[in-house]
Amino acid sequence: MQFTLEGLDKESQARAGSMKLDHGVVETPIFMPVGTVGTVKGVHQRELKDEINPDIILGNTYHLYLRPQTNIIEKAGGLHKFMNWDRNILTDSGGFQVYSLSANRKIKEEGVKFKSHIDGSFHTFTPENVMEIQRKIGADIIMAFDECTPYPCDYNYAKRSMHMTHRWLDRCIKHLDKTPLTYDYNQTFFPIVQGSTYKDLRQQSAEYIANAGAAGNAIGGLSVGEPAEEMYAMTEVVTAILPKEKPRYLMGVGTPINLLENVALGIDMFDCVMPTRNGRNGMLFTAHGTINIKNKKWEQDFSPIDEMGITWVDTEYSKAYVRHLFTVNEMLGRQICTIHNLGFYLWLMREARKQILAGTFTPWKNKMVQQMDKRL
Amino acid sequence: MQFTLEGLDKESQARAGSMKLDHGVVETPIFMPVGTVGTVKGVHQRELKDEINPDIILGNTYHLYLRPQTNIIEKAGGLHKFMNWDRNILTDSGGFQVYSLSANRKIKEEGVKFKSHIDGSFHTFTPENVMEIQRKIGADIIMAFDECTPYPCDYNYAKRSMHMTHRWLDRCIKHLDKTPLTYDYNQTFFPIVQGSTYKDLRQQSAEYIANAGAAGNAIGGLSVGEPAEEMYAMTEVVTAILPKEKPRYLMGVGTPINLLENVALGIDMFDCVMPTRNGRNGMLFTAHGTINIKNKKWEQDFSPIDEMGITWVDTEYSKAYVRHLFTVNEMLGRQICTIHNLGFYLWLMREARKQILAGTFTPWKNKMVQQMDKRL
Ligand SMILES: [Zn+2]
Ligand SMILES: [Zn+2]
Repeated sequence: MQFTLEGLDKESQARAGSMKLDHGVVETPIFMPVGTVGTVKGVHQRELKDEINPDIILGNTYHLYLRPQTNIIEKAGGLHKFMNWDRNILTDSGGFQVYSLSANRKIKEEGVKFKSHIDGSFHTFTPENVMEIQRKIGADIIMAFDECTPYPCDYNYAKRSMHMTHRWLDRCIKHLDKTPLTYDYNQTFFPIVQGSTYKDLRQQSAEYIANAGAAGNAIGGLSVGEPAEEMYAMTEVVTAILPKEKPRYLMGVGTPINLLENVALGIDMFDCVMPTRNGRNGMLFTAHGTINIKNKKWEQDFSPIDEMGITWVDTEYSKAYVRHLFTVNEMLGRQICTIHNLGFYLWLMREARKQILAGTFTPWKNKMVQQMDKRL
Repeated sequence: MQFTLEGLDKESQARAGSMKLDHGVVETPIFMPVGTVGTVKGVHQRELKDEINPDIILGNTYHLYLRPQTNIIEKAGGLHKFMNWDRNILTDSGGFQVYSLSANRKIKEEGVKFKSHIDGSFHTFTPENVMEIQRKIGADIIMAFDECTPYPCDYNYAKRSMHMTHRWLDRCIKHLDKTPLTYDYNQTFFPIVQGSTYKDLRQQSAEYIANAGAAGNAIGGLSVGEPAEEMYAMTEVVTAILPKEKPRYLMGVGTPINLLENVALGIDMFDCVMPTRNGRNGMLFTAHGTINIKNKKWEQDFSPIDEMGITWVDTEYSKAYVRHLFTVNEMLGRQICTIHNLGFYLWLMREARKQILAGTFTPWKNKMVQQMDKRL
């Protein structure tokens, strides 16, 4: 992977860059739509490409490993071919999902034994086999196997866990070196900074991760329930240490406001289920605040769902119509809100990039944050 | 409405025609996708138009009356504007849905009192108010309020019911004459032949309906559980009587084979939930038979879902991928199969039309019926 910094904001740490990967160039900052099991819920691949237009999307190793299972993806020729997506893909390492199983998993130095949420069968993820699984899934960017600590997290637990994540990182790197590529394109490996909400741990972890010398770095264990201010504080601590010339990925974040604030702190990449999940629940993110389309107040509002018209759904459908679709529980309502939200998130990142390149990011960001912090 | 017969098959009663309505020309034979509450489930209006391309779709008066409610549709400027569909729409009269409520409705000469399936509230449909509701919904073709008898149906009940449907028809016509159009385009009224599966009743009803002199005529009360042969027999009895120069609409039918057999008997218009409902359940209709995409046999079949490529989904997605989407219960699977099936139904009708115009309908129909009668 080749990462080029194309612009730096003078009043913040915000950066505009581009990552050259084998399935195309990713312009940053970027939001990666989440395609859990090889589908961005409710969105056709063609719509995703033509209307929402992300350079990269995300798949979940845990979910894909269980279904359709790694061997099916391998037989299809990799996830790109299986789902018919010819741009870049990033897979997480399954760490976050496995830890979410809480009662149904056991963490040891060797790895994590867990019970499938589907059929109750037992499986083990280790740094080694997760690297092998990710080779076979075949994403362009693959992630280290880490432990994602909950919030709040006891200091001593966070510290022990962080060091285990570091040892796991060494095992990931060692095993990857011995594991050839499954397909005829490259995979870029990102290690993950942990350390919960403790400044000293985050610093230690960022240093350890920076020393691994990977082509890009990630920050995990945030957006797990902590206040936004704590998240920003940790991002700031970590981005001060992670190398400037490499992309930085803040995992699992967040609201549109979270995205802009973290861009200002030097983050280049994001992913989150919020635009898709909240969309399926009738929440629309807009440049002027959020809309709960299920509210009675939209019953007779025949204006377009978003005058901005970022994607075609914005002006194709009225608020009253989409409200009706939710009232009668029609899937088209979920489809519409998902496309709108993803379109908005991607627009927000493209716009942030433009503003950074134009040297106007900080005032624009401040205006947008204020504007978006409303319920319409 | 102006109906022009453009071609007659020599070996059958099949006809090709065109109906000129205020939202465009409808080429027949036609299949009308069902948009129950103002949405063809899982399909964006744009996809419906560009990919599936029907000249007319159907809405359900019963459902629209309950939600969003007639006044909301009226405030939107009619159903076309409410759902953003600028081609033709036909609304049924609610009769079929009301009778499906069985325990929750009471039929009297005056009309039908029924309990809403949503909130248990009581409502009454009469020939008069159903005409008013359909004026406000604003479909291009509106249907008479009738009683749809179940199958099997006692002869005496069927006879009494049929005569009531005839009296209701007179009331519908009388009331429509007094009820001005709500919008600035015309509405065409279709009466409905009933008579269950009794030849003499179907003949009497067809004569009564033909005498009403409407611009088009419909056949109701079929496809309610009777064997296909009985359905065809009744269609044949009725089409022998209904005027040749007017379009004939067979309500609620059916499988692709049912469609072709009924086209051969002189039917011009169809609607049915089968392509959409079965699609959401993983059944794909193709020119070579039906596919249950949930079957294990497709797990590693990476070929396109339909080589014919009628709509883009056919070649965009593989069988293994769509099977996976159903296995993990992802809505995209339901979206894909719905688009495929509707695309196939519309293709089948366009192809039937071409074959009729080319004088090759009957051998083509016989070949297709044989071909489609398979499970792949
Ligand atoms: Zn350590
Ligand atoms: Zn009669």
